[in-house]
Amino acid sequence: MMTDALITTVPFGQLNREPFDLMEQAGLRYVVNPIGRRLTENELIRLIPDFDVLIAGTEPITARVIAAAPRLRFISRVGIGLDSVDLLAARARQIGVAYTPDAPSPAVAELTVGLMLSLLRGVHTANALAHVGDWRRVMGRRLGEITVGVVGVGRVGSRVIRLAHAFGARILANDVAPREVDEPIEWTSKERIFREAEIVTLHVPLTPLTRHIVGAAELEMMRPTAFLVNTARGGIVDETALAAALRTQRIAGAGVDVFCHEPYTGELAGLDNCLITCHMGSMSEDCRFQMECEAVGNAVRFVRGQPVSQLVPESEYLLRSGTPASQAPP
Amino acid sequence: MMTDALITTVPFGQLNREPFDLMEQAGLRYVVNPIGRRLTENELIRLIPDFDVLIAGTEPITARVIAAAPRLRFISRVGIGLDSVDLLAARARQIGVAYTPDAPSPAVAELTVGLMLSLLRGVHTANALAHVGDWRRVMGRRLGEITVGVVGVGRVGSRVIRLAHAFGARILANDVAPREVDEPIEWTSKERIFREAEIVTLHVPLTPLTRHIVGAAELEMMRPTAFLVNTARGGIVDETALAAALRTQRIAGAGVDVFCHEPYTGELAGLDNCLITCHMGSMSEDCRFQMECEAVGNAVRFVRGQPVSQLVPESEYLLRSGTPASQAPP
Repeated sequence: MMTDALITTVPFGQLNREPFDLMEQAGLRYVVNPIGRRLTENELIRLIPDFDVLIAGTEPITARVIAAAPRLRFISRVGIGLDSVDLLAARARQIGVAYTPDAPSPAVAELTVGLMLSLLRGVHTANALAHVGDWRRVMGRRLGEITVGVVGVGRVGSRVIRLAHAFGARILANDVAPREVDEPIEWTSKERIFREAEIVTLHVPLTPLTRHIVGAAELEMMRPTAFLVNTARGGIVDETALAAALRTQRIAGAGVDVFCHEPYTGELAGLDNCLITCHMGSMSEDCRFQMECEAVGNAVRFVRGQPVSQLVPESEYLLRSGTPASQAPP
Repeated sequence: MMTDALITTVPFGQLNREPFDLMEQAGLRYVVNPIGRRLTENELIRLIPDFDVLIAGTEPITARVIAAAPRLRFISRVGIGLDSVDLLAARARQIGVAYTPDAPSPAVAELTVGLMLSLLRGVHTANALAHVGDWRRVMGRRLGEITVGVVGVGRVGSRVIRLAHAFGARILANDVAPREVDEPIEWTSKERIFREAEIVTLHVPLTPLTRHIVGAAELEMMRPTAFLVNTARGGIVDETALAAALRTQRIAGAGVDVFCHEPYTGELAGLDNCLITCHMGSMSEDCRFQMECEAVGNAVRFVRGQPVSQLVPESEYLLRSGTPASQAPP
């Protein structure tokens, strides 16, 4: 009997046919997202009933979606974030969930440093003005001269630390579980990071513990010359509070790649001191290709009854069941 | 007798009064550029007659300007480029010329890498579109995965190499006088760099030998996916040829900080695939402050009859007298 896969993530297979070839060789029949953008919950509910496997982007895979998917046996996320997946609803139905946690990290880290350099030197501001005939020399600061605060030192955060250190930045870091890193960083509280850093960059997943870890109170702690960078997940920053802080120039600016609702059309898009990219953290050809191959590989191994090494770890389920995996440090 | 200095560079002394204090302590009377932007030749001719010392930006210090400056004894450039100064006319009048060749380098190198990361990931494109309500996920490439070609490996080029290497880029390099660098780079011809590199970045001074080293022929050699970055001097790129290459998408894009005529209002400003900054290479607070202090220090030492260590070297005068200091490699 054929196994049917729905590929919802966009784009997929545009750079190279290899992910399609892998599926065809495994006898996995597939349909690519017919809408060409991130699906809504209702769109997914309409499509999902006929599929055994979901090669998923960041669309909402809620309990309602799972209830509408009698054949679904495996969700293979193309990427690392799991906030879009109701893991407990999947487990209740014995649906396996895999992800590709490592593949996007190099691309996210590079975009993060790119946003930092643009913010520090006003590249986005000068470019926008020059394109309307206004020559504006922006005075900036150097990454090598400032303090960068990294909240969340996992796969991406540790890479951001390595790159920022190469520029000569002083680095403050915070994580629920501090880990060994090669660079000379200082572990400290989130509060001290908000108060001292010239750039605060976020690299935590979106979980009940991290929702709105940057809100009005944290923005109020920040220096008026400081920048916030979020290439992690939208829900970890209170967008309304951020827009207010930028509108009143309470902080100097922000670089935001991820939003609560995407495509994003909110107030931040109207603020010149908000540098916006469109959930492009993983969007480099090499990382995207790696993610696609890994996600398809996970699905193929599942279908063949082989062990899947990138199953979502137990700690992620525990987080959802209301038992925090660890305590946030002060 | 008081010595009078005209400070033409803009901005000056905005971050910190120290450069003014240094002049006052040395009995150097000063006037700050009354127009607040780069002076034209005629504006400078009207201002210069009453001054003994010029603390100079990049305004044209031509033979006509020098002829209009009977009291002028010392030109202290705030920065590294000397293309704006008629060195031979200054020498004929025994006017000393100093510069600050090292101070801007860290800031120029960081801006260069910032432009590279924006170009590679389409940060400027996504940001411009997001601000008009268009959510566009741009697929990009990683600096760590591509070949960067560095033309000119001096103070800035060697720093760009160090940073690009930290990202993991493969590096091709060219210079009239190859020098020892710590990173594993490959010295090669300019032609091979134009043909192979995904990013070509220019770090040569503007001299008769480097004028239009990137013209239609070089752009024609480049890959359609490649980017050109120029944070060095405007005249080294043929702007008309670059605009044509960008308009026809012959190359993927360019990041341009310097132009033949500044403020720039030409065709490049109308092209979305041209990321434009406004001669901001040295515009970081730390480097700008360092440049101002060094330039004032050079002027003060000259006025006091002390040795000036940052006098423009003899090789720069030789270049202007039509005797090339060295031959360009193939």
